[in-house]
Amino acid sequence: MRTPLFIVSTKAYLWGNRSLELARIADKIAREYDVCFIYVPQLVDLRLIAGEVEIPVYSPNLDPIKPGRGHGHDLAEALKEAGASGVMINHSERPKTLSEIEECLKRAREVGLNTIVCCDSPRAAEAMTSLEPDAILPEPPKLIGTMKPVSLEMRDFIVESIKAVKRRNEKILVIVGAGISCARDVAEALRLGADGTGASRAVCESPNPEKLLREIAEAMRKAWDSRRS
Amino acid sequence: MRTPLFIVSTKAYLWGNRSLELARIADKIAREYDVCFIYVPQLVDLRLIAGEVEIPVYSPNLDPIKPGRGHGHDLAEALKEAGASGVMINHSERPKTLSEIEECLKRAREVGLNTIVCCDSPRAAEAMTSLEPDAILPEPPKLIGTMKPVSLEMRDFIVESIKAVKRRNEKILVIVGAGISCARDVAEALRLGADGTGASRAVCESPNPEKLLREIAEAMRKAWDSRRS
Amino acid sequence: MRTPLFIVSTKAYLWGNRSLELARIADKIAREYDVCFIYVPQLVDLRLIAGEVEIPVYSPNLDPIKPGRGHGHDLAEALKEAGASGVMINHSERPKTLSEIEECLKRAREVGLNTIVCCDSPRAAEAMTSLEPDAILPEPPKLIGTMKPVSLEMRDFIVESIKAVKRRNEKILVIVGAGISCARDVAEALRLGADGTGASRAVCESPNPEKLLREIAEAMRKAWDSRRS
Amino acid sequence: MRTPLFIVSTKAYLWGNRSLELARIADKIAREYDVCFIYVPQLVDLRLIAGEVEIPVYSPNLDPIKPGRGHGHDLAEALKEAGASGVMINHSERPKTLSEIEECLKRAREVGLNTIVCCDSPRAAEAMTSLEPDAILPEPPKLIGTMKPVSLEMRDFIVESIKAVKRRNEKILVIVGAGISCARDVAEALRLGADGTGASRAVCESPNPEKLLREIAEAMRKAWDSRRS
Repeated sequence: MRTPLFIVSTKAYLWGNRSLELARIADKIAREYDVCFIYVPQLVDLRLIAGEVEIPVYSPNLDPIKPGRGHGHDLAEALKEAGASGVMINHSERPKTLSEIEECLKRAREVGLNTIVCCDSPRAAEAMTSLEPDAILPEPPKLIGTMKPVSLEMRDFIVESIKAVKRRNEKILVIVGAGISCARDVAEALRLGADGTGASRAVCESPNPEKLLREIAEAMRKAWDSRRS
Repeated sequence: MRTPLFIVSTKAYLWGNRSLELARIADKIAREYDVCFIYVPQLVDLRLIAGEVEIPVYSPNLDPIKPGRGHGHDLAEALKEAGASGVMINHSERPKTLSEIEECLKRAREVGLNTIVCCDSPRAAEAMTSLEPDAILPEPPKLIGTMKPVSLEMRDFIVESIKAVKRRNEKILVIVGAGISCARDVAEALRLGADGTGASRAVCESPNPEKLLREIAEAMRKAWDSRRS
Repeated sequence: MRTPLFIVSTKAYLWGNRSLELARIADKIAREYDVCFIYVPQLVDLRLIAGEVEIPVYSPNLDPIKPGRGHGHDLAEALKEAGASGVMINHSERPKTLSEIEECLKRAREVGLNTIVCCDSPRAAEAMTSLEPDAILPEPPKLIGTMKPVSLEMRDFIVESIKAVKRRNEKILVIVGAGISCARDVAEALRLGADGTGASRAVCESPNPEKLLREIAEAMRKAWDSRRS
Repeated sequence: MRTPLFIVSTKAYLWGNRSLELARIADKIAREYDVCFIYVPQLVDLRLIAGEVEIPVYSPNLDPIKPGRGHGHDLAEALKEAGASGVMINHSERPKTLSEIEECLKRAREVGLNTIVCCDSPRAAEAMTSLEPDAILPEPPKLIGTMKPVSLEMRDFIVESIKAVKRRNEKILVIVGAGISCARDVAEALRLGADGTGASRAVCESPNPEKLLREIAEAMRKAWDSRRS
């Protein structure tokens, strides 16, 4: 995964054709600005969208099963064949047991899916380094779905999360989220050292998502440039 | 839903192109014999398959959420737009709370998805009539995934389930499953009065699924003809 | 279970000695007014309280296990030996799958524990009659823990729940709850035909629980007398 | 917690008076040999047993709630007042989400309960060091409840778990389990460097638990003596 990155996750705010439309906008802007956007749609939309855009499309779930039994469980091999580049698991709205997280990461690696593990705190972020996901996404649950950005409201949460992860394993990306709604929030998250951030409600409900994503892409470019200099 | 019907559920035995191939075979045979097959794929394959076949394609899951929050939860509206005709919930491998079952049925109705509720016993089948799904699918958990067909091993289970449902609501279909692996098992389930049956492992792992489904379709035609006479 | 009955459930509002004290007050008043109070403490307090009072003490949980494995699961036999008269399961704060509910009721019956199954709606209440618990306790989740009594705010909910259960099985008690905080709320629930009601927060946080329970007992006596006449 | 220690967990193999009897035997032998036994009973038996023995009694569960709502959830304050010295959470038979584990540890610390977190692998054991429990108990799930001791069948599992935990935090105890059934299994686990081990089925189903625990205590003394020399 190239950094900085920005995750557009639809959750259940958008689906079907409107989700495809948003993914296409994100795809266009990602190319235009040469930044990395990741798109996380409703699972049932994954194949459609992965077939139409170049940006990586991630599954919002994976279950710790192997080929065989498992009615209603999402199989790693099926996600991969459908075009998923990765998976995002353990979101606070879809938490998993410690044992399931471990098994999901193993299954994702076996089929070549990138992994983002969400968690609730800097401590939990540190814990997750032992399971070696590609990225860790700590979010303070109380800010999720609000318009209070973690990068302004809880700077310490971000700084501590980054420190906690990087001192264990520099290669694991730290993505932060919760309440992110505009370019300023993104810029601030990156300035604090995050490898990426993301938004869900703000992008899905934006009256002008193209303008919003464009501003975010610009903030990402600036952060990128200032890091290299 | 037209009866008798037969559910082909892939669970995690098959996915992607191989699942599409099986769905096409089922589609062809359903047309040829004018019988009702329902196909339940991995969720991520739903849209692809629904776009390629005429037989109804059902989702293996639905979550009790409304548009909005709900990372990793499957939204009724998204399943519908992707081409699902219905949903199959509360399978013993993906059980739901009583409250979730009720809310899922409400959400499915709101968007026009047919509903099949699985359960473990004749009593639970009777209970589910109060929630008015389109179909109830009682399965003895211990026979699921085996080659011991419920229609031979536990005839009473089938007879009692049908009685329990129909005395409450004649319109609700009773589908029975577990261990069904050949035309004889299907014929016997229908002879006992079931509105349908289904299989997962036996069809997915069959060296010749076309032959198997053809034999099953023939058994369904015979059952149909003998009921009308 | 003798009716009308009133359930005092501590949830996590009270525990240990303060819970024992409340149970003793309930016990005294139940005897004084000859009414049926049921006490549901924190599980770890069950044995202590059951040993000190005469009113029935119910467990707030039961797990669907048999003697043997099951770390952290509450065994029916253990609850019974500790002095439980019954169990209250599937509360909206501790929901169970349909399959677990069925198995819990079976296990409770096997060891001689009375059963109260909570649920969310009149429909779900009707569904539960098929599993034949001793009592069904429908509660509108949105009123739980508030001071808005279901017996004033949602009279239809009560009336429909009673009708739904009694037309299926007259012997199953219908207890209603959510937001009940004083004698007037109790009187109204009983007047609408409920076999009982209950409270948690209001009793546990009352500055004078003895006075509150006394007023409730009086309301129960009046309801009792007016039914007999 | 003094080491080496040995956990006697009844799960649902024993309860009530028979559990109290076993706890008394463990208590007597612990005193006789000056070794540390920890007793984990059915939750409903906790207060009874904690009141009768001197060895620490741990709760088999804790829920991540605060005083207030939470029907059917086990409150830290209630466990503490009932006499619990600690809690054992996330057993593979009662797994918790990562978020719940973190919150449970916080709640346990707030009321002064010792903490043992179970997990499935050396990696997960390492992860749990970040949450700073008092002890970590990795168990290979496939050996739990068998008579195949982890200390003979999967020596690497033990060695790697100890290394994984201790290089992060020397103070956190590493207890290992699964399939432990006699003094030899215990001796071998301690020889490999574990701070403790435990058994459930083997002790509960032993025809002579006193003899078995005596032999285990002797093995613990020997391990203790050989470490000091």
